[in-house]
Amino acid sequence: MALLFKSTYDDSPSWRDYLREHIPELEVRTWQDVGQTSEIEFALAWKPEPGYLRQFPNLRVIFSLGAGVDHIFADPWLPADVPIVRIVDEDLSAQLSEYAIHLILHFHRKMSYYFSCQTHRQWGEPGRTVTSQATVAILGLGHVGSDLARKLRDLGFRVNGWSRTPKALRDIECYHGEGGLEPALHGANFLVCALPLTRATKEIINANTLASLSPGAYLINIGRGDHIIDRDLVTALAQGRLAGAMLEVFRQEPLPPDHEFWGDPRIRITPHIAGDPNAKTAARQLAENILRTRRGESLKNVVDSIVGY
Amino acid sequence: MALLFKSTYDDSPSWRDYLREHIPELEVRTWQDVGQTSEIEFALAWKPEPGYLRQFPNLRVIFSLGAGVDHIFADPWLPADVPIVRIVDEDLSAQLSEYAIHLILHFHRKMSYYFSCQTHRQWGEPGRTVTSQATVAILGLGHVGSDLARKLRDLGFRVNGWSRTPKALRDIECYHGEGGLEPALHGANFLVCALPLTRATKEIINANTLASLSPGAYLINIGRGDHIIDRDLVTALAQGRLAGAMLEVFRQEPLPPDHEFWGDPRIRITPHIAGDPNAKTAARQLAENILRTRRGESLKNVVDSIVGY
Repeated sequence: MALLFKSTYDDSPSWRDYLREHIPELEVRTWQDVGQTSEIEFALAWKPEPGYLRQFPNLRVIFSLGAGVDHIFADPWLPADVPIVRIVDEDLSAQLSEYAIHLILHFHRKMSYYFSCQTHRQWGEPGRTVTSQATVAILGLGHVGSDLARKLRDLGFRVNGWSRTPKALRDIECYHGEGGLEPALHGANFLVCALPLTRATKEIINANTLASLSPGAYLINIGRGDHIIDRDLVTALAQGRLAGAMLEVFRQEPLPPDHEFWGDPRIRITPHIAGDPNAKTAARQLAENILRTRRGESLKNVVDSIVGY
Repeated sequence: MALLFKSTYDDSPSWRDYLREHIPELEVRTWQDVGQTSEIEFALAWKPEPGYLRQFPNLRVIFSLGAGVDHIFADPWLPADVPIVRIVDEDLSAQLSEYAIHLILHFHRKMSYYFSCQTHRQWGEPGRTVTSQATVAILGLGHVGSDLARKLRDLGFRVNGWSRTPKALRDIECYHGEGGLEPALHGANFLVCALPLTRATKEIINANTLASLSPGAYLINIGRGDHIIDRDLVTALAQGRLAGAMLEVFRQEPLPPDHEFWGDPRIRITPHIAGDPNAKTAARQLAENILRTRRGESLKNVVDSIVGY
C-alpha cells in the first residue's frame, strides 16, 4: 500500500512525517520516484497534469491537496469511480478568513490613502465609514464563507450570505439559489467570493452581478480566477462602479508579468497565499480516510462529482 | 444652563443636534461665541488650551471629547473640584479594535512584502506564521483593550493582557501590576498599547519593555505618543529587535514633516484616526450625565484624578 505525493508547491517530507504519525507503515512516494504504478493506492495531489492520475490502475482515493477540487476536475481523463476527497480544515478556513478580514478593513479604513500620505510626509484627513452601516456580501457559505461571516458579524459588519442550498446563521441574512443572488448582492459595500469553482459558479462575478453592488464597492476574491470575467472587472473599476479589488487567484497562475491587473492601483494582488493547508491537521483527516478505506467504511469529505465540490 | 463646545477637530452642529434630541432645551454654545462665561455649566472639550477652562466660574462637569482624558489633565490650571467625565463608547472601542486587528493582520500576513512584489510585477513567495502560535500582548484591558483581546482570541491568536488592577477574561492570559508587565510581554510577537496616558504609564514602551518581546516583533500604538520613548523605538527597529511599528499617536500632532518616523519604511503612520467618537451614541451618555447633575445624582464614567483615567 503506497500513497503518491504529487505537488510541486508543497513540502512532501513534512506531509509524509505527519501521515506516518498516524499510520507508521504507510509508504509515501513522491512523483519523482513513483516505482511500480500498480502499488499506488492513494494519491495526494495539487494540480496534477491532465491524464497523470489514470496511470495508476489500483488507485482507491484521490486526495486534493487543498480546499478546492477544481484543479482535479480539470483533468478530462480523470479515472472514473475513484472517489475524490477534499481537505476540510479549520485552520485553512481561519487563514482565508483572516486574509479577507484584513483586506476588508484595509479598504474600509482607507489605509491606502494613509500609506500614500506617509510617502508625502502628509498628515492625512480623518474620514470613516461606520462599520454598522457597511454590508459585506459573501458568496459561498461553506466552511470558509460561514467562518468569515461569523467573524465579520462579530466585528460589527452587516453580513449577507449566499449559497446554493439554504443555510441559517445567526444575525446573518442568508440567501440561496439563483433567485437569491441579486438580493444578497444588492447594495453591498464589499463582495467576497468564497465559492468552489463549478460549472454553476464559473464567471459568477460579471457586469451584471457587479452592477448590483453599492457604487464604490470593493471586491475580494479568495475563490478562483475563473469566478471572474476579468474584462468586466476592469470595466467596473474604470467606471468607478467598483472602487477596488483584492485578487488572490487568477485564471493563469503565476499571473503573467504583462497582465493589466499588475499596474492598476485599484487592484491589490497576492500570489495565491491566503490559505495554506496545514499538513499537521490535514494529515489526521487523510489518515482517517485511508484507514476507513482499509476497513471498507465510507469516506469523509467526499466530493460530489455532479455538483463539483 | 449652557454647554460649551470646545474643539477644533469635531463638528459642533452634529453634537448639538444629537444632544438636543435628549435635552431639547439645552443651549449649546461654541468657543467662538461663548457669551456670559458665568452661564456655562458644562464643557465638552478636546485639547483645550491650558487655563481655558478656569474662566467659567459655574462649571459643573467637564466632558472629554474622546476616550482619553490626558489632554484635559495637561492643563495645569484646571479648575479644582470639577468632575471630569470620559466617553465610554462601544462604537469607539470597536473602531480602535478593528484598526489594531487590521494592522496586526497586515504584519502577520506580510502584506507589505506582497504589495511591494506587485510594484515589481513579481509573483511573491508563500510563507506564513501560524496564527495559533502568534502571541499578542495588549497593554490596557479597559473597554478598548478587552474588546480587542476577545476579538483577537476569536481570530485564533494567543493573547496576553496586562492591566493595573487584576482582570479575568476567558482564554486570555491576564497579568497585572508592575510585576506582571515582563511576563505579559515575554516572547510576544505583537505589542498593542491601549493604555490611558497617566504618570504611571508614560514612557512604558522603552528599551527595557521592547527587549522582552520576541525578536522581530511588531508594535501597534493606539494609546498616546507619550507612551513611547521615540529614541528607544527607533533603536529597536534599527537593530532588528523590532520588525515594524504602526503609530497612530505622537508626542506632537500633526507629526512634524521633518520627523524621522515619516521616512522609516518599517514604520506605518496614520494621523490619529483610529477612533472617532460617535456623536450619536456619545450624546446619549452626555445627556444622561447632564440630567443626573440636575437631579443631584452621581455621574457615570467619572475620571479618578489620582489614577488619571
